[in-house]
Amino acid sequence: MIGNKVGVMSYKVVFHIDWDDDQTLRMGLANMINLLNDGDSSGSEIHMVANGHAVRLFRKEFAEGNMHQIEELNSKGVRFCLCNNSMNKFNYKKQDMLDACEIVPAGVAELCKLQASGCAYIKP
Amino acid sequence: MIGNKVGVMSYKVVFHIDWDDDQTLRMGLANMINLLNDGDSSGSEIHMVANGHAVRLFRKEFAEGNMHQIEELNSKGVRFCLCNNSMNKFNYKKQDMLDACEIVPAGVAELCKLQASGCAYIKP
Amino acid sequence: MIGNKVGVMSYKVVFHIDWDDDQTLRMGLANMINLLNDGDSSGSEIHMVANGHAVRLFRKEFAEGNMHQIEELNSKGVRFCLCNNSMNKFNYKKQDMLDACEIVPAGVAELCKLQASGCAYIKP
Repeated sequence: MIGNKVGVMSYKVVFHIDWDDDQTLRMGLANMINLLNDGDSSGSEIHMVANGHAVRLFRKEFAEGNMHQIEELNSKGVRFCLCNNSMNKFNYKKQDMLDACEIVPAGVAELCKLQASGCAYIKP
Repeated sequence: MIGNKVGVMSYKVVFHIDWDDDQTLRMGLANMINLLNDGDSSGSEIHMVANGHAVRLFRKEFAEGNMHQIEELNSKGVRFCLCNNSMNKFNYKKQDMLDACEIVPAGVAELCKLQASGCAYIKP
Repeated sequence: MIGNKVGVMSYKVVFHIDWDDDQTLRMGLANMINLLNDGDSSGSEIHMVANGHAVRLFRKEFAEGNMHQIEELNSKGVRFCLCNNSMNKFNYKKQDMLDACEIVPAGVAELCKLQASGCAYIKP
């Protein structure tokens, strides 16, 4: 699904999701696939930050339908960052979540840092 | 509806819509009218990027209620960019869409480029 | 609820809300508390801009459930900016709104200015 076309553009961008809505996650995943197809994936820096109720979407038990795409995007360099504050609030453990995810201390802090480092922000 | 007041500020901004929700489009159009009224419209750079299901809102057959505002904003320099990836997915043709719109290859890529060029991002 | 931990990071960020949805406001307030707990609150610059229907959330008569958090955040330096265009549209007066709020001429213009001055954008 993700092409190998090498374009001339590279992109720095963070996608943000914060509600437990599978449609929104799918929109974001499709967006990232389009970006990788459009641009120079080797030079791009693509992140997704999930906080609030959205962390639930990455639990192994609920994520099955999106797991393949998430793993494929992760293998192409896309980071999937889950907010530890939200994980604690819902009492989720790292082992409950898809292996392609990493845990960051605070999702909103990560969003600030990434934008300060030059990433565009996209809210699907 | 759009005043001719010449202010001291000019704005660089991209509005992003991605769901087929007329209320959200109207919010965005009202936002852009406010910006043009508030600032120096001749020096401002205002874009709207529609991707995903939101492209449907710009089909001639559905857009009637907003057509006048979209055309007026476009005549003041506002760009309305529709994502070609989304157009292809829903099998929409350029001639189905409002004439004030332009087609861009990938909506998310456009959002990244515009932010990298200094545009603020607003998601109504 | 807001700790006094002094971290090494400071954040420049604007949170944007535009719908009359208490859940979204609560998400934004929790986000800001997390940021203040995570970072160096004395060096951070945190704003919330409410426009459109979201200004209603800050009316004294409806805001009771969130008033304490809003006041506490405001006492830590967080700005709560209400769009005057939206206030006029709904015929709201300054005295109807929480004292912790300030009125800005145009919410979207404020969002543009803050991002142009280096603030990250977060839409809860």
